[in-house]
Amino acid sequence: MSVHKVIDPAIILTRPQMGENIGAAARSMANFGLNDLRLVSPRDGWPNERAKDTASGAFEAGVRVRVFDQLDAALADCHFVYATTARRRDIAKPFSQAKTACTAGVTRAAMNQKIALVFGAERTGLENNEIALCHHLIHIDTMPAFSSLNLGQAVLLIAHHWYHAALSHVCAQKSDDLEHALDFRVYGHESRKDALAPHAEFENLMNRLETALEALHFFKNPKMRPALMRNIRAMLMRSEFSTQEINTFQGIISALMGKKVR
Amino acid sequence: MSVHKVIDPAIILTRPQMGENIGAAARSMANFGLNDLRLVSPRDGWPNERAKDTASGAFEAGVRVRVFDQLDAALADCHFVYATTARRRDIAKPFSQAKTACTAGVTRAAMNQKIALVFGAERTGLENNEIALCHHLIHIDTMPAFSSLNLGQAVLLIAHHWYHAALSHVCAQKSDDLEHALDFRVYGHESRKDALAPHAEFENLMNRLETALEALHFFKNPKMRPALMRNIRAMLMRSEFSTQEINTFQGIISALMGKKVR
Repeated sequence: MSVHKVIDPAIILTRPQMGENIGAAARSMANFGLNDLRLVSPRDGWPNERAKDTASGAFEAGVRVRVFDQLDAALADCHFVYATTARRRDIAKPFSQAKTACTAGVTRAAMNQKIALVFGAERTGLENNEIALCHHLIHIDTMPAFSSLNLGQAVLLIAHHWYHAALSHVCAQKSDDLEHALDFRVYGHESRKDALAPHAEFENLMNRLETALEALHFFKNPKMRPALMRNIRAMLMRSEFSTQEINTFQGIISALMGKKVR
Repeated sequence: MSVHKVIDPAIILTRPQMGENIGAAARSMANFGLNDLRLVSPRDGWPNERAKDTASGAFEAGVRVRVFDQLDAALADCHFVYATTARRRDIAKPFSQAKTACTAGVTRAAMNQKIALVFGAERTGLENNEIALCHHLIHIDTMPAFSSLNLGQAVLLIAHHWYHAALSHVCAQKSDDLEHALDFRVYGHESRKDALAPHAEFENLMNRLETALEALHFFKNPKMRPALMRNIRAMLMRSEFSTQEINTFQGIISALMGKKVR
């Protein structure tokens, strides 16, 4: 095993409302060495003067911003997606505390995976359809009676934990006995020869599957379709398909459909 | 050893300038269950409308505020004082990362010590004379090229780490084998039968010593007096005197002065 770079994760703010919060997020990113900021449908557009004010020079210091219409598009090149949520949802997803999730995320990032850290809108958080695009949830524990963290606070805490996890990772790599210092199985994640597929390939698979199931009248009750698709997605996502595996799955769908049509 | 409550630490903001930052600090305190906020000479006085805005209800949720003229007075009932600083100072003080310091601080708070967590003014940070009142420094590691954290960010990170350290402590106490679960020596701090004296008693000792030394022409060069006193203070502070030990020290001073005068 050679020494890997810890790939910079994408910080993705979905439908952020206040420019101040975008700027505060950028400032915290710069504090902790993160540079890839992605905005999904920012309410007030981009660029945003109020964001520049609270960023305290973070954009000039290297934080790059890209704007997307949909979360889906922002995730296209990402391999593994964390969503930060204040509470559990009705979709079965694995979840961790911030520190644990960042440690695992850094391990993935050092294995050449592009990690996304997704944050919801100020008041409403992430919608179920957005959470469905994510592999793993991050819960930031707070006092139950006063649990509301603002967007800037949430990004700061995650960036801080990511930074320390990355430092620990790099220090461990520099130890003499590298082979033993980095035992990925500690994090419950076996090192794989085939790389995890980027998000867009999984999305293609899901879209094709949904279209196919629709055509085949799988969704008897149209109202149940979104929830059913979320469950299917969650179930398949846990497998963390490689590109080859997705191709195999596509082949299976083709085969099954051919069989049905025949 | 019985199960101890983790005493709520005091969050002390020295000469805070912007009400927004005081409110953000209070909000983060409420998020993580801290209630004792002390302001030393807030620039715009107290109460402050802008602080109420950014606090998002933290004051109503239980964060109490007291205002002091001097840091000294704010520390009077505190036993052990941490100062958050961005960089090392010329005074020799032990320092730790935030997580390590909070773990040690919680251990002290569970031993009935009132802990102070001191934060400097927005632009200028803590002055050397303020740092001299503190036992231990907390460094929040950031990227060297973009290291400036604002007051709200700093309080958030410390409150977050305190909360998790306190949770871990309480969980450890609840384990069956309490005697072994809490080994204070892990933190390099031997459990003592005599309690650490409150700050005011140590201050009385320092003031008396300084007055005595002045009267005895100890400070040959008046310009050197502040630096010399800081060094003496730092040196004695590391001993963490109990009330009885301070009384003993006071007795020693009396004795020495009596000897000198005689």
